[in-house]
Amino acid sequence: MKTKTALVIIDMQKDFVLPGAPMCVAGGMDALVNIKRVLQYFREESLPVFHVIREYRADGSDIEITRLQGFLTKESYCVPGTEGCEIVQGLEPLENEYKIVKNRFSAFMNTELDFMLRRLGIQTIVVCGVQYPNCIRTTIFDGVALGYQVILITDAAGAQTEEIARANIYDIANIGVECVSTDEFLHNTN
Amino acid sequence: MKTKTALVIIDMQKDFVLPGAPMCVAGGMDALVNIKRVLQYFREESLPVFHVIREYRADGSDIEITRLQGFLTKESYCVPGTEGCEIVQGLEPLENEYKIVKNRFSAFMNTELDFMLRRLGIQTIVVCGVQYPNCIRTTIFDGVALGYQVILITDAAGAQTEEIARANIYDIANIGVECVSTDEFLHNTN
Repeated sequence: MKTKTALVIIDMQKDFVLPGAPMCVAGGMDALVNIKRVLQYFREESLPVFHVIREYRADGSDIEITRLQGFLTKESYCVPGTEGCEIVQGLEPLENEYKIVKNRFSAFMNTELDFMLRRLGIQTIVVCGVQYPNCIRTTIFDGVALGYQVILITDAAGAQTEEIARANIYDIANIGVECVSTDEFLHNTN
Repeated sequence: MKTKTALVIIDMQKDFVLPGAPMCVAGGMDALVNIKRVLQYFREESLPVFHVIREYRADGSDIEITRLQGFLTKESYCVPGTEGCEIVQGLEPLENEYKIVKNRFSAFMNTELDFMLRRLGIQTIVVCGVQYPNCIRTTIFDGVALGYQVILITDAAGAQTEEIARANIYDIANIGVECVSTDEFLHNTN
């Protein structure tokens, strides 16, 4: 990679990834296998890693309006201190990696992510995690809007169905984002 | 007060307020006495309270560029887990009150504060804390820009000198912000 690059892993928390979890994304576990490989590469290269996670206050005061009722009346999730809010096994952040808490879909929306990427001189972000139509897509679109080159690792991100994933990859590629598989990414960088 | 109102207390942490602290604001302790009275009113009226605090990662990766060198080479402050990062005695948040972490001057900049005020239907924010030229002022200007009515409690906010405080109150009053003392505020609301 020619420009300074950071890895952005999105919402790989137990509540979103583990089978049977309240907000389980069907494609999350498949993505996990590949995210681990990408993460290992960034660690070996000593490149910055950002673990972006979702947190909601237990009273729902900071959750999206469309999720509020279900959160309060059915099942809550991503509440700090609960097990479901934790990052899944195998992706636990190292001490020199950054954790960014977000309340909305985009990892850039009202978070310090952009401040920190700028400080590090990052020009390219590599995006993976869950899920395609929401957090992956909004983060990528905001990243491009803010001037970052973005690489999406297609099989290191998950959706509820393959069809949803494909439709989103199609749109994301169309705005000029490099969409590659984990194998292609690791091959290109070596 | 005719509109739904929330209290926003800014940066009343040990590192900013206690005498001898790394970033001590000289007027902080005087403000503290009055902030306690305002806070008591909001608690008695069951009105929402937001404790906005500053946090910096220990490696300085999220601190303002102008503070970075001093933070890394002289003395760090507001690092989560350190005592200096804690809210001062007498203002400890209750369980139903909100804590908002910010990395920049304005309490609105890349935080969830605006999301949460909107959700609560807040139209007026009452601002106090430290310090006048930086966090108090930028929060007030952003608050007005975002469409909130803003009340500044002049003697519940602090600066390094009275002169700085006066100059800022002058400018803040000039954009249409209600600037009242704690006595006036408590008298007007009863």
